[in-house]
Amino acid sequence: MSKNLTIPKGTRDFNPEQVAKREYIFNTLKHVFSLYGFVPIETPSMEQLNTLLGKYGEEGDKLIFKILNSGNFIEGVSNEDWNEKNANKLSLKICEKGLRYDLTVPFARYVVMHQNEITFPFKRYQIQQVWRADKPQKGRYREFYQCDVDIIGSNSLLSELELLLIIKDVFTALNLKYQTIINNRKILQGIAEQNNIVEHFTSFSVILDKLDKIGFEKVKSELSQLPIKSEDFYKLTNFIFNFNQLSTNKDKINLLLEYINTDIGKKGVEEIIFIINNCEKLNIDNVAIDILLARGLNYYTGTILEVKSTETQIGSICGGGRYDNLTGIFGLPDVSGVGMSFGADRIYDVLEVLNKFPENIHQTIDIFIANFDINLETKLFEIANELRKNNLRVEVFHDSNVKLKKQLNIANQKQIPWVIMLGENEISQNKYLLKNMKTGEQFLLTLNEIIDKINNL
Amino acid sequence: MSKNLTIPKGTRDFNPEQVAKREYIFNTLKHVFSLYGFVPIETPSMEQLNTLLGKYGEEGDKLIFKILNSGNFIEGVSNEDWNEKNANKLSLKICEKGLRYDLTVPFARYVVMHQNEITFPFKRYQIQQVWRADKPQKGRYREFYQCDVDIIGSNSLLSELELLLIIKDVFTALNLKYQTIINNRKILQGIAEQNNIVEHFTSFSVILDKLDKIGFEKVKSELSQLPIKSEDFYKLTNFIFNFNQLSTNKDKINLLLEYINTDIGKKGVEEIIFIINNCEKLNIDNVAIDILLARGLNYYTGTILEVKSTETQIGSICGGGRYDNLTGIFGLPDVSGVGMSFGADRIYDVLEVLNKFPENIHQTIDIFIANFDINLETKLFEIANELRKNNLRVEVFHDSNVKLKKQLNIANQKQIPWVIMLGENEISQNKYLLKNMKTGEQFLLTLNEIIDKINNL
Repeated sequence: MSKNLTIPKGTRDFNPEQVAKREYIFNTLKHVFSLYGFVPIETPSMEQLNTLLGKYGEEGDKLIFKILNSGNFIEGVSNEDWNEKNANKLSLKICEKGLRYDLTVPFARYVVMHQNEITFPFKRYQIQQVWRADKPQKGRYREFYQCDVDIIGSNSLLSELELLLIIKDVFTALNLKYQTIINNRKILQGIAEQNNIVEHFTSFSVILDKLDKIGFEKVKSELSQLPIKSEDFYKLTNFIFNFNQLSTNKDKINLLLEYINTDIGKKGVEEIIFIINNCEKLNIDNVAIDILLARGLNYYTGTILEVKSTETQIGSICGGGRYDNLTGIFGLPDVSGVGMSFGADRIYDVLEVLNKFPENIHQTIDIFIANFDINLETKLFEIANELRKNNLRVEVFHDSNVKLKKQLNIANQKQIPWVIMLGENEISQNKYLLKNMKTGEQFLLTLNEIIDKINNL
Repeated sequence: MSKNLTIPKGTRDFNPEQVAKREYIFNTLKHVFSLYGFVPIETPSMEQLNTLLGKYGEEGDKLIFKILNSGNFIEGVSNEDWNEKNANKLSLKICEKGLRYDLTVPFARYVVMHQNEITFPFKRYQIQQVWRADKPQKGRYREFYQCDVDIIGSNSLLSELELLLIIKDVFTALNLKYQTIINNRKILQGIAEQNNIVEHFTSFSVILDKLDKIGFEKVKSELSQLPIKSEDFYKLTNFIFNFNQLSTNKDKINLLLEYINTDIGKKGVEEIIFIINNCEKLNIDNVAIDILLARGLNYYTGTILEVKSTETQIGSICGGGRYDNLTGIFGLPDVSGVGMSFGADRIYDVLEVLNKFPENIHQTIDIFIANFDINLETKLFEIANELRKNNLRVEVFHDSNVKLKKQLNIANQKQIPWVIMLGENEISQNKYLLKNMKTGEQFLLTLNEIIDKINNL
């Protein structure tokens, strides 16, 4: 059977080193989030399907893992439905629950269900797994972590600034270089309005978003499929072309002030000016306006942002934005919020590629105590106990019948830097042999000297 | 829609205070586990159904949540199977994956799949959720955490002693009183052998396990249903009755030495003597032999143990034992291991009932900075930044148009102990108003004085 053992495609086992590396990322995020007054919540892995469905578009719905009702799941299905064999329709009759697809919809559900216990503005973070029945490929998994941070119940632009500060602190702590791209949905909406293509807003923003990939000429040709008057078309494509040549936020803002002429668009420009000005005051670097940034999710209504790693080709490692009515889908309208999601798996890949994880992260045990005298076994435990009181992580070897050489090999394979050996002789002196596994050096020391030596390194 | 919002039964949302309390338990466990040289692994939430099924008995199989195949799940089902409408059979045709039911089977699967990367003895801990389609009731959930710690690849009894040390350290750290009950499957097996009821081993141990609940007379009557010779029956029930009257491990061991007369049984007694003797040497208190402890899981082959809270009626908060062939089901025979699982939810309930969570665990933010002058907003961010550099958790209020009184109310509701207020006057002196929200006291202090004051409390 061993040969046929597998785990579901798109899922992963994590070995101790990988868990330690992931914890490093999660702990860095949690630490920064909590310094900014965010508090953690957790929601169930499963949600009612009616909570999830219809929130992620038709494609998203297909990617939700459904959980078969337990017991006789066929019972409630009519013969007619059964015989029709419509998989999509039938799945809703035999499944009530699904695995969460992201943390945003469960968060909105949480806020609505617990609105009377929550003090607004509610600043929450949530670091949990999500599941998507996506086609697995390099860097894309069916089970992965999202690390979300949101402020809900305030429409102040200071909240956006706070997110930018958090980005700065997180990536500074992780020692990663990055750039934050910001845009505002109101600007995109304004552009759509002044070109009379509001009904085509989604296709319009999708086309803009592709400029990086397909180039200006192709974007121009795709835009020409939209019903834009030729005079407007000329101005629009000119604006896009020129915008894309500019490098400073100041020049970009001037061009926006010149081109944008509807109220909603002007509001968006005003918001982005506030943010950019305050970034300067607060020493938030690496923020660049880009009107081409669209972000797929339809619930965004104001600022949108995305963070890219600038040292690798891995792309977006964080993204988010302002939404004015997220909880509206669950019956609580007019609650404005802003939030973002850090991509832990992507950040992991960036740190791995750049070799930027802390140097000793794989070292999870400090000391190995060899065992070659059955009469001294409880003594080994006593010594270990003293070392543990000093917060040293100690593995006592349990099988005295294994040869010392093999024991040292085991310590080596486990990457344990120190080995303690003791025999009757040493014990009578209250001293123990400490071996540095890297250099091979050996020292005869008392327990306190051992503790000092290891703690000082 | 808000009124109809629900989450799946048996699942829970966790608010910030509850998350903090859970983290406290997990972090205590992780800390102790790592001091003993255990390292963490993680496995996917989903496993292939063929990995899970047949490992937990017929009842267990029914409690596994199955995940509907994505896409057209009907495609692979024959018309015959479809029309037969056998839910159990059909579920295996339309589902390939299930949510993990415990951490033991995934761990065994992990060890077999990764056997060439693992250095044995492998000491791993794993703290992850499991899912069971059980009938939800008080204290029993459909999604809950297990916290497992196992040593695999050694048959030394020192491993059992190490588990007892970990139990001691964990519950000492959590400030909980407890008792550890130990038994040995070999003793139970020996008793079955000498009464010629080896084929009835499971019913036999189930009957013994019930003594606490149903009393000696009923146990006697149930045992009389087993095919035991009358002479043996007299000795057996006498032994059980007498054993149950004894209070010291010494007396219990003497009775065992007297009664047990088969090789396997004697081996079990020998093992338990080794453990009890070493417990004395290592100051491991609260360990009591109880031959009535059976533990349901069939894979145990040696020591079995269970920890009970002695301050509450909540019962078992940790359990485990020695298994000699766990990985055999996946094709890797003869690997002995020993492990145990801490019940985080039960421990949570015990700490809650006894009011033993750390006093300030609900306090997740240290300082609230009020905001009542739009011109000072970036100044607030700068002050917050300085405080955060000193590891203080700071919430800056973002809406200067909200009345100060309401802001102070919000700080109070969020249980934030300190509020900083600043106006032009204070800033010109480089001093800020610090309010103690508990006592109402106010102080005019420099930033450094504020940091000192808060850190010293």
